[in-house]
Amino acid sequence: MLRIAMLGSGFIGRFYADSIQGQRSKDKIVSIYARKEVNAKKFAEDYGCEHYTSNMEEAIAHPNVDVVCIALPNNVHEDAVMLCCKHKKPVVTTKPLGRNGAEALRMLKAVEEAGIFNGYLEDLVYTPKFLKAYDSVKNGALGRILWAKSRETHPGPHSDWFWNIELAGGGCILDLGCHCIEITRSFIGKDIKPVEVMCWADTQVKPIEAEDHAIGLIKYENGAIGQFEVSWTFRGGMDLRDEVMGTEGTIWINNFLRTGMDMFTTGKGADYVAEKAESNTGWLFPVGDEVNDLGYNHMFTNMFRSIEEGKQPQETFYDGYVVNAIIDAAYKSAKTKLWEPVNLEVWRGQEGLSKASNLVDYDEDNYLVKEEMTHYGAKKLILKNKKTGAFEERILE
Amino acid sequence: MLRIAMLGSGFIGRFYADSIQGQRSKDKIVSIYARKEVNAKKFAEDYGCEHYTSNMEEAIAHPNVDVVCIALPNNVHEDAVMLCCKHKKPVVTTKPLGRNGAEALRMLKAVEEAGIFNGYLEDLVYTPKFLKAYDSVKNGALGRILWAKSRETHPGPHSDWFWNIELAGGGCILDLGCHCIEITRSFIGKDIKPVEVMCWADTQVKPIEAEDHAIGLIKYENGAIGQFEVSWTFRGGMDLRDEVMGTEGTIWINNFLRTGMDMFTTGKGADYVAEKAESNTGWLFPVGDEVNDLGYNHMFTNMFRSIEEGKQPQETFYDGYVVNAIIDAAYKSAKTKLWEPVNLEVWRGQEGLSKASNLVDYDEDNYLVKEEMTHYGAKKLILKNKKTGAFEERILE
Amino acid sequence: MLRIAMLGSGFIGRFYADSIQGQRSKDKIVSIYARKEVNAKKFAEDYGCEHYTSNMEEAIAHPNVDVVCIALPNNVHEDAVMLCCKHKKPVVTTKPLGRNGAEALRMLKAVEEAGIFNGYLEDLVYTPKFLKAYDSVKNGALGRILWAKSRETHPGPHSDWFWNIELAGGGCILDLGCHCIEITRSFIGKDIKPVEVMCWADTQVKPIEAEDHAIGLIKYENGAIGQFEVSWTFRGGMDLRDEVMGTEGTIWINNFLRTGMDMFTTGKGADYVAEKAESNTGWLFPVGDEVNDLGYNHMFTNMFRSIEEGKQPQETFYDGYVVNAIIDAAYKSAKTKLWEPVNLEVWRGQEGLSKASNLVDYDEDNYLVKEEMTHYGAKKLILKNKKTGAFEERILE
Amino acid sequence: MLRIAMLGSGFIGRFYADSIQGQRSKDKIVSIYARKEVNAKKFAEDYGCEHYTSNMEEAIAHPNVDVVCIALPNNVHEDAVMLCCKHKKPVVTTKPLGRNGAEALRMLKAVEEAGIFNGYLEDLVYTPKFLKAYDSVKNGALGRILWAKSRETHPGPHSDWFWNIELAGGGCILDLGCHCIEITRSFIGKDIKPVEVMCWADTQVKPIEAEDHAIGLIKYENGAIGQFEVSWTFRGGMDLRDEVMGTEGTIWINNFLRTGMDMFTTGKGADYVAEKAESNTGWLFPVGDEVNDLGYNHMFTNMFRSIEEGKQPQETFYDGYVVNAIIDAAYKSAKTKLWEPVNLEVWRGQEGLSKASNLVDYDEDNYLVKEEMTHYGAKKLILKNKKTGAFEERILE
Repeated sequence: MLRIAMLGSGFIGRFYADSIQGQRSKDKIVSIYARKEVNAKKFAEDYGCEHYTSNMEEAIAHPNVDVVCIALPNNVHEDAVMLCCKHKKPVVTTKPLGRNGAEALRMLKAVEEAGIFNGYLEDLVYTPKFLKAYDSVKNGALGRILWAKSRETHPGPHSDWFWNIELAGGGCILDLGCHCIEITRSFIGKDIKPVEVMCWADTQVKPIEAEDHAIGLIKYENGAIGQFEVSWTFRGGMDLRDEVMGTEGTIWINNFLRTGMDMFTTGKGADYVAEKAESNTGWLFPVGDEVNDLGYNHMFTNMFRSIEEGKQPQETFYDGYVVNAIIDAAYKSAKTKLWEPVNLEVWRGQEGLSKASNLVDYDEDNYLVKEEMTHYGAKKLILKNKKTGAFEERILE
Repeated sequence: MLRIAMLGSGFIGRFYADSIQGQRSKDKIVSIYARKEVNAKKFAEDYGCEHYTSNMEEAIAHPNVDVVCIALPNNVHEDAVMLCCKHKKPVVTTKPLGRNGAEALRMLKAVEEAGIFNGYLEDLVYTPKFLKAYDSVKNGALGRILWAKSRETHPGPHSDWFWNIELAGGGCILDLGCHCIEITRSFIGKDIKPVEVMCWADTQVKPIEAEDHAIGLIKYENGAIGQFEVSWTFRGGMDLRDEVMGTEGTIWINNFLRTGMDMFTTGKGADYVAEKAESNTGWLFPVGDEVNDLGYNHMFTNMFRSIEEGKQPQETFYDGYVVNAIIDAAYKSAKTKLWEPVNLEVWRGQEGLSKASNLVDYDEDNYLVKEEMTHYGAKKLILKNKKTGAFEERILE
Repeated sequence: MLRIAMLGSGFIGRFYADSIQGQRSKDKIVSIYARKEVNAKKFAEDYGCEHYTSNMEEAIAHPNVDVVCIALPNNVHEDAVMLCCKHKKPVVTTKPLGRNGAEALRMLKAVEEAGIFNGYLEDLVYTPKFLKAYDSVKNGALGRILWAKSRETHPGPHSDWFWNIELAGGGCILDLGCHCIEITRSFIGKDIKPVEVMCWADTQVKPIEAEDHAIGLIKYENGAIGQFEVSWTFRGGMDLRDEVMGTEGTIWINNFLRTGMDMFTTGKGADYVAEKAESNTGWLFPVGDEVNDLGYNHMFTNMFRSIEEGKQPQETFYDGYVVNAIIDAAYKSAKTKLWEPVNLEVWRGQEGLSKASNLVDYDEDNYLVKEEMTHYGAKKLILKNKKTGAFEERILE
Repeated sequence: MLRIAMLGSGFIGRFYADSIQGQRSKDKIVSIYARKEVNAKKFAEDYGCEHYTSNMEEAIAHPNVDVVCIALPNNVHEDAVMLCCKHKKPVVTTKPLGRNGAEALRMLKAVEEAGIFNGYLEDLVYTPKFLKAYDSVKNGALGRILWAKSRETHPGPHSDWFWNIELAGGGCILDLGCHCIEITRSFIGKDIKPVEVMCWADTQVKPIEAEDHAIGLIKYENGAIGQFEVSWTFRGGMDLRDEVMGTEGTIWINNFLRTGMDMFTTGKGADYVAEKAESNTGWLFPVGDEVNDLGYNHMFTNMFRSIEEGKQPQETFYDGYVVNAIIDAAYKSAKTKLWEPVNLEVWRGQEGLSKASNLVDYDEDNYLVKEEMTHYGAKKLILKNKKTGAFEERILE
């Protein structure tokens, strides 16, 4: 059993609390910090916390607190982390780690110097579907990974601070791209170095300074390509899809809008009138168990078990730092319109990889280009002559 | 925290254990009973149980045991339940409750006389999608429920005893139909009386005495219709789908084969060769988190919280009894080829309901039959004259 | 090139005309009959017909007419067919053939006596997906067919006469069930005799005499089961789905509501306001090419080529008659609540079939019940001892 | 009725012929040219052509030929087009128009100087789903278009010449990207100028010089973004998907792998053994009517009707030229790693567009950032103060 201090009582703090104290969980939020005491008090009532405060350090330092969970706006992550270091409390932080690589690096160095447990709360690499897919990829079911794409788009965040570029540090790249980057990086291999980034970003719809739509490509040292598509201007709900291509297979994941539950309602049901709203009628696609399907349960299980067992979790501040470094390159590229190098002062993975060979021997004289089954049941080969480079079709009966 | 005695160390016992001790659960299986001691010992090792035994009563009576979970073949449910009554231990039982209504009724009466908590482990009315759909139905989003269908088909059960009609008590109707019946009954309303059943059943493929394919219709007192489709001869995996139709809407649930995760693999991936098998190649449709998606987590949460709070769970032995009574009628109908009444010695819901009126007033002279939008944007009505009964098309511009 | 007389200028007549004169077709509707001359004239203008009339016989007898296409309400099919016989004109008729088996049988006998080409316009056994699936079934991809289900439900027909039981001859069983019956009969085998029918039908919602919801089971001589689900009370659009189960495979067809095209719209698009309607917003699922996807193109191609080549089309009046006979049994069953025999005065398929054996030899001593792959890569068998009947699990490593 | 000379008897020539002479078509291929006479003869037999030849000019000049259809490898398009100009024959050409913009421009100028009808056979902007979606987009159902993506990936082309960069002119960008570019350009608006292109391309798997995988972004003058994803290394079949995002809606199209037809087969069906192959077992996703669903029917209808009516078809050589110009920029960008301008010597659309404003007035003092419905039924607004730029949440009850 772990006793948690939750920092932040907003949308994400409550989502976390629903997971941490959900089902038959033995864990307990014992202290809640919010900027406004009234909010802390309300949260404490809702989740049965024994202590609430508008003084962040008080929550962190509280003697009953085993671990601190940061669910605050991006601009106060660093302060909170530093206080955890001061009080030597294990810490887990919502995404993105920092507003930029420099912030993230300072946090990484601080927790490592302090020697405290640090977990990066990237829930979308803990969704049940991701974990299942990840296993298959690791087992080689897809062969060599060539490309991984992640898409997160929706009509924009719930809280006002997200729209303020100073508080948030950026727009949908920082808010949503951080998910997509870690998802694709995980499929490609977290020990494979991200080398450079090309990013298009624009403010197409919203009256804001930050980008509300962006597409990015991340080139890895082994030739694999990561891709993110993010937007705050999507209409139709929250679109959360991942795709992976390997030499031997393909995975498609739909985490939200098409998960096997379809509902049509006219909205005229007797007791339903009160909630009648344009968005509550017609074809709807609810998710069964949002807290589980979005990865919160598996994430906190991994974090808390790791703390108890003295192990590193699947996602650490180091991962958060790498993601921030990639995002920095993306923002730079969106301005310079160039492929921008990923600046990684700290890199703990493989170095010096090169692309895999694309030559598959068919026989002494030929490379195999393709084999396919014809309609009439014979095998057809496309071969390339090793000497002449000429291509040839050959039918095997 | 609850301490559980698990009776049965097979496929379903292990599934239950994965749920009960999964994630950050505070609950613990402290005693395991299996018919063969070697199996009990293995289970105890795998799940860290402090006590194992091949004497069922020893497990039930164990002083550390708060609640007993029955995960045994159908033919020993009753014996196990009676021992729980004897030792006054709360009991939860896997589905179906009995092999027939008489067995179920004896169990129901026994637990109620003994005054012990009794839960019926019908996991498929606890799947996240079912719970979400159920809420919508209860809120009136679908209007008056007209029809609910549930389908469970797969290529047959894993263990030998299922195929033995003496031990199992029946074939796929008992094994799978019990799920479908409780799902559809829940959507229609658990207080609405099931009146009569028509069932077709046959042994089309398997060399067994019991049925391997069946389709049934259950008529409810208010005119609603429940439908089940069950088979042990389906090819392609496990097909778990529910549908509900109401006067104001529709719900479609796919719990297993199409849930937003598609994977294609040639099976040639380097490290994947060991597991290469015909059924592990081509397009595959894994489920992210089987234990959660099949309802086990929400089911045990509901059961264990109910025990702690001294409440009735969503599903009790009474529900198991009603399901068995419906199944009895289905088996009888399959033989007599008649609609057979559901024989309910104990009925605790509404009585004497009749069908809702199908007359919707349009104006003083007409009933409304249908309204639709034409291509060219006008509203088209079909009306029925109250006096003459004549039908008329009317266009409103 | 064929010159057609179209009888009927309503919804279905126009759908047929869009198909017959669509794309690069060489065929031409030269005469149009409608009960009201004004409608005939309008149709003639829209489709460029050289002749229009409110006298049915005039259209049929018109010297330029090669073939007559009946697109009239059910109650006038017989009169129209008799006139085609009189004038010895090839005739194709919309579904259902008659309002009942007796009507259908008279029409069948009449066209055969007259020796004229007769085609039954059951478009849903001509949809591209059906034809593809049918080929696979015929090639044995699904093994022995055990069950075929077809479902057609929508919020009710467009025209007033459908709701009048005298003109229509019945409700949704006749209107929609005729499709489902011929689809499932085709998958099971058109030479396999339908033996008996069980049907539930009710008027749950609409203020009409006929049924607005029905479910039926059709038992075939070889033990296969056909199933239809039909309704005029479905909310959410038109649900057109077929399923087939065989000993070696499964087919699922969705012809309308989920065909790979999803659209979300707020309805606020600048030029779109005029068409803004409740049913035109939110998630919509359009079909690409209704005329082709619903089978009209392939149906008329088959009909007209058959006429030119002097062959029988895939669907003849005989098929229409068999469908009507099955529907008669369904209506009777809905009243008597019994399995009712299908009364087929004329039967041209196989006779005296019995169920296939369900015994598969594994070795000298055992039958094979099931084989499956375990998680750990071994093959698991369930066997049944030929002598003792005992079941046994066996693991092959 | 039109009489066609088909140039090319290979895979695509036969696909075209199946469409042109399919169903009840009045059109006829009267002459077939193939490089090898034996192939021309075989084609003539299969499709009933009155004339075959290995002399291209002979086919074009044949007096019975009304229109020439070019279905040849990319490197001979230009020669064939010039011969059509010489003989003043209407010409329709398979995609891509040229191997590069210069070739395409010469062809465009030649046909316009010769004054002959010219059609560009971009079938994928004629698929039924595209046409339906295109209508909705044009009607404003999606509001202002922000982004359009098209993806075409498969395991590589059938014929040897595709793999030869000299004959083909490029790899999957030219082969598949030409489709994607015209699809996205159509959604964004064919009169909107493509300004610059960023493209990543690599040869990840195949032993060839050309790229086997590429991703590109195309920026349009009004700020909209087109995206293509193309590959010859995809595993799992042919992936053909389009997506469009607008300010008021979204469209998703799946043209091939998930179109509402699912089939599972063990491959053990009695008569099916002969065709048993790895790729013919497990879950399969056939397309109902490939010729129609891939757009061939609607494309030739549009082309041939346009010829008969003296109109321009939906797709002309000019469109093919624009596509080639965009592809040129993509290839250049893949090398220079820069956003490369689209070099359009000929441009016939709008000029000088700028991005739409992203300011939506809420009231005198505020812009509207977002409105959403809360769980508890109130409307929540995010506003931006016009003067201070501050963001504010406001709840309307």
